[in-house]
Amino acid sequence: MRYYPVPGKGLTYAKVNRAIEAVFAEHGKGRVSMPPKVYVNLPNGDFRIMPSYVPALEMCGVKVVNVHPNNREHHLPTVMATTLLLEVTTGLPLAIINATALTDMRTGAAGAIAASYLAPSRNISLGIIGSGRQAEAQIAAIAAELTVQELCIWSRTMSNAEKLAARWGTLNARATSIQRAASCDVVVTATPATSPVVMNDWIHEGTHINAIGADGPGKEELDPAILVRSSIYVDDINQAIHSGEINVPIRNGLLTRHQITGTLGEVVLGLKKRTSKDEITLFDSTGLAIQDLAIARLAMEEAEYLELPLPL
Amino acid sequence: MRYYPVPGKGLTYAKVNRAIEAVFAEHGKGRVSMPPKVYVNLPNGDFRIMPSYVPALEMCGVKVVNVHPNNREHHLPTVMATTLLLEVTTGLPLAIINATALTDMRTGAAGAIAASYLAPSRNISLGIIGSGRQAEAQIAAIAAELTVQELCIWSRTMSNAEKLAARWGTLNARATSIQRAASCDVVVTATPATSPVVMNDWIHEGTHINAIGADGPGKEELDPAILVRSSIYVDDINQAIHSGEINVPIRNGLLTRHQITGTLGEVVLGLKKRTSKDEITLFDSTGLAIQDLAIARLAMEEAEYLELPLPL
Repeated sequence: MRYYPVPGKGLTYAKVNRAIEAVFAEHGKGRVSMPPKVYVNLPNGDFRIMPSYVPALEMCGVKVVNVHPNNREHHLPTVMATTLLLEVTTGLPLAIINATALTDMRTGAAGAIAASYLAPSRNISLGIIGSGRQAEAQIAAIAAELTVQELCIWSRTMSNAEKLAARWGTLNARATSIQRAASCDVVVTATPATSPVVMNDWIHEGTHINAIGADGPGKEELDPAILVRSSIYVDDINQAIHSGEINVPIRNGLLTRHQITGTLGEVVLGLKKRTSKDEITLFDSTGLAIQDLAIARLAMEEAEYLELPLPL
Repeated sequence: MRYYPVPGKGLTYAKVNRAIEAVFAEHGKGRVSMPPKVYVNLPNGDFRIMPSYVPALEMCGVKVVNVHPNNREHHLPTVMATTLLLEVTTGLPLAIINATALTDMRTGAAGAIAASYLAPSRNISLGIIGSGRQAEAQIAAIAAELTVQELCIWSRTMSNAEKLAARWGTLNARATSIQRAASCDVVVTATPATSPVVMNDWIHEGTHINAIGADGPGKEELDPAILVRSSIYVDDINQAIHSGEINVPIRNGLLTRHQITGTLGEVVLGLKKRTSKDEITLFDSTGLAIQDLAIARLAMEEAEYLELPLPL
């Protein structure tokens, strides 16, 4: 059994985005096995179990990932992940992967694929709500797909928005008001909010939104009126209803599952697409186990590993 | 993060049985978090994900375990397991454990605890149906709880029964007919059967049965008429209905969930027990994630480990 402590060191979004796009195509064709994520609650957070099997990759396994919002006190990331891969034909444990950084990248890549297919044009202004690890991953991943002419970043702590903007001078980045960020062509929300931070009035027609932050029951970042105006795409319908941006409005009866337009897999396959300049499109990302398999494959390609003894 | 390649080398059932008994008591008190096992089907088998959190142990994590019935062709065990433990307070990955041998032991220990509480006496004849790794684990674990005066082993391949009997000469062991094995005071079924191999007529009053083999939908080892005559105890009600010995008769309407007498946790707590000499008691084991945490704790106590780098 191999252990990969630093997988994906030299990985670029140019490569990761293609792998994530390909695995969403498999999902769209119904060619993956992926039970819903399982949550276990803990006193200060939770952990989630994400098993899957992708025949086209000849890979199966599970990612285990925690969410502990107060981990900064312990000088640890909020989210840490480990992926275990098994041999499909025998079930033999093949590899353990330190998947914390990969989790950031595969989520960024899903947002980039959604934006690439659904954005109103190839040249965009990009608004980012939030300034954490995922905010930065979305910027890097989207910039590998679309030409970002202007980057507007808002954060509850403006100094964090300024620091992030300083790292993306090449994209004409600056810290702005939340209204300004929300008025961009492509808007990404990547906060841990549990009540709406982006209001309906701020979103203009034709916008594409990546709703990334909501990944558990009770979380939401957008005024539900935005969802009602939008064509909603999800990564996986059951997961999105359980824990995505749509979970709260669906529970409150403000939205029904019939208002979901489709899945990102269907978009990648060309079965669903933006139908007008004025349409607001929204991608509700919860994160799929198959994304973790897809990036694991890439990440192992050139990475160093330790060979672990496995007496059976 | 630590990796334990050979945990539990010096573990005895005297110790393991107590740890398993204690964690079933926690289960009986409703003090554990344990979502149902999740199954992912593969071309030649499946893998299962078993997450849990046991506050009394201050432990949480997940076992990943496959079942590939034709693995002998590949010179690999049918069942191989890996356990990942996380720190409860932060979710930090703490340890990866090679849990293949531990899986045998913790299942054996659950059978031993059931037999210890439910057998008709402390001095027993023990009948074993099957001759694989779990058959042997049941013998060793039960012999640590009860005085085995006679050991009758049947296997579809009689030479395997003879080989197993030869290793347990101290318990007056021999290979016998299946009828003889089924007429013992305590009967263990540990086969991969998908239709009944033990018939109702062979089981006499007062017997305690450990039904171990059925651990997936469609599997069964016992004539359903035996279940109807028995007081049925399960490790976990939902798991047993989904994948235990009772799964097929419940699906076929031969049994209802109201005919389940209780859980092993309730037995350990003294809330339920054998009520007469003539009662047939049956323990339907599916294997619980909390058993894997309990044995992981013991197994790590004196085991050697490798320290794995985990940059975050």
